Amino acid sequence: MKATARAHTNIALIKYWGKRNEQIILPTNSSLSLTLDGFYTTTTVEFKEELAKDTFYLNDEPVKGEQYSRVAKFLNLIRRTAGNEQLYAEVRSINEVPTAAGFASSASGFAALAAAGTKAAGVDMSNQELSKLTRQGSGSACRSIFGGFAEWRMGNRADGSDSHAVQVAPQDHWDIRVAAVVLNETMKEVSSREGMKRTVDTSPFYSGWIDSIPNDLKEIKAGISVRDFEKVGQIAEANCLKMHATTLGANPPFTYWLDTTMTVMQTVREMRKSGIPAYFTIDAGPNVKVLYLPQYEEKIQQILSDIEGVTDVRLSKVGQGITYL
Amino acid sequence: MKATARAHTNIALIKYWGKRNEQIILPTNSSLSLTLDGFYTTTTVEFKEELAKDTFYLNDEPVKGEQYSRVAKFLNLIRRTAGNEQLYAEVRSINEVPTAAGFASSASGFAALAAAGTKAAGVDMSNQELSKLTRQGSGSACRSIFGGFAEWRMGNRADGSDSHAVQVAPQDHWDIRVAAVVLNETMKEVSSREGMKRTVDTSPFYSGWIDSIPNDLKEIKAGISVRDFEKVGQIAEANCLKMHATTLGANPPFTYWLDTTMTVMQTVREMRKSGIPAYFTIDAGPNVKVLYLPQYEEKIQQILSDIEGVTDVRLSKVGQGITYL
Repeated sequence: MKATARAHTNIALIKYWGKRNEQIILPTNSSLSLTLDGFYTTTTVEFKEELAKDTFYLNDEPVKGEQYSRVAKFLNLIRRTAGNEQLYAEVRSINEVPTAAGFASSASGFAALAAAGTKAAGVDMSNQELSKLTRQGSGSACRSIFGGFAEWRMGNRADGSDSHAVQVAPQDHWDIRVAAVVLNETMKEVSSREGMKRTVDTSPFYSGWIDSIPNDLKEIKAGISVRDFEKVGQIAEANCLKMHATTLGANPPFTYWLDTTMTVMQTVREMRKSGIPAYFTIDAGPNVKVLYLPQYEEKIQQILSDIEGVTDVRLSKVGQGITYL
Repeated sequence: MKATARAHTNIALIKYWGKRNEQIILPTNSSLSLTLDGFYTTTTVEFKEELAKDTFYLNDEPVKGEQYSRVAKFLNLIRRTAGNEQLYAEVRSINEVPTAAGFASSASGFAALAAAGTKAAGVDMSNQELSKLTRQGSGSACRSIFGGFAEWRMGNRADGSDSHAVQVAPQDHWDIRVAAVVLNETMKEVSSREGMKRTVDTSPFYSGWIDSIPNDLKEIKAGISVRDFEKVGQIAEANCLKMHATTLGANPPFTYWLDTTMTVMQTVREMRKSGIPAYFTIDAGPNVKVLYLPQYEEKIQQILSDIEGVTDVRLSKVGQGITYL
């Protein structure tokens, strides 16, 4: 009745941007990500007869409010699967995902919770089934079940039974790196959930975004399979720019970019001109992640750290999927 | 055989972004602009029997190369209309449009050239006919024939005979102002001509842009007619963001924005939050133009001038159409 699991966060190279079902979290497009070695969540779930409700500790602090409710709601799914809806759990999570780095800790958080929770409840699931379950806690978390490169196939069934991640390439397929560039300002006036929704509902560019995904996915998978860094980087960078372009067309328009976001993007373009292969990607926030190859690590870290307004540069390798401790 | 005319530049509130015919300059969408009092070109054209070719002086310097060719090619149109294809002209232009302010001097330049050239050639044209002629020298110049607010109706005929500007409201209809924010960096790796073309040819957002124009035009004209500053500002700002969003989807993607461009946009949004009505618009370059009302002029100039990376703030009122001197 007790289990511990670890899951790593992931960074999308082809972005998840829009839901077709908000209740069970079904996306409007397939996406593809890189699981990251450096940032993870370790979660212990213990089901206890004596508990009258779930408890949730994050970094040893009890959690209440909306964050608690999302966890308790997700545990309901596990209880239902296990056939015991009256058994409550103590959940203890340790987050090694610095919020300031702009990674969604919900990805590693819900993947670790799903893995530890199902194991503690005695439910035996394939990773594919686990990915489907995880998806209902946090969409992008379904990709964190797998290490290396993972594709979240959107599926087309209304019940979500074909919407889950699959591994595209394992962790040891390719040693590429990600630098998370942390800015001294933070601003996120529009949550990613709200931003997605407003974009889907109002942006004249949304159908163009959707139409462009199948080719981006096909091309980036071809690039990953032959380890073509330039190809993968170009597609990832262009895909990120398209995602952010859709928000500029929303009503009212919005952007996740700050001036320093723009400076980092310019710096990456200048690095390429000077012969250092590097590409950026940006999620629903101002921070920038830079893809690079191991032999340029020192130079990349130096150049990015020297940008005015950058407070930290955190490096990561390709990570593994969920593990049980 | 000699005439002098003056034309003012204009700033588009609904952007011209894409050509359906590059030869005679027919746009893929209608656009709407504000003619600006502060920035203009004064041009004298004299047809002389003794000239063996056209001569062109800009700010008293002889001009050669592509800029000369565009002027000579445009004079051919006037000669053809006048029925005398062997008569060459001396053209002298004085430009009061600072290139650094990021205004297209081609708008005031070709409008003044068309007005002075036709008058010198003894061709009597309505302003509407003059606008059609001017369009073939530089698209956005066709709006500078008129003062106040002008709409360039794209038309649908293949010969361009219904593609010209009309006045939407005269100069004295509404005293709104424009601050041109000049940045200390300049970068324009992609010309507006090339940028338009690449966007039309490759951006998945281009059809969304085109689809959104009719409503933007209808709404902004409604706003102008009742002098609703907030409505006009909101539509202009959103339209500019949409135009720039289309470039992020192009292949390869590009942007005209620099970090300071982003800072100025953020500052304008913050001004609004603090109760100062102001809206931005940006053409195919990094500089920002800010729309404001006269009573906030001092404050606006102060705030914009204080932004790091801003070297100059040039103010302008609504301007008049072409005048003959």
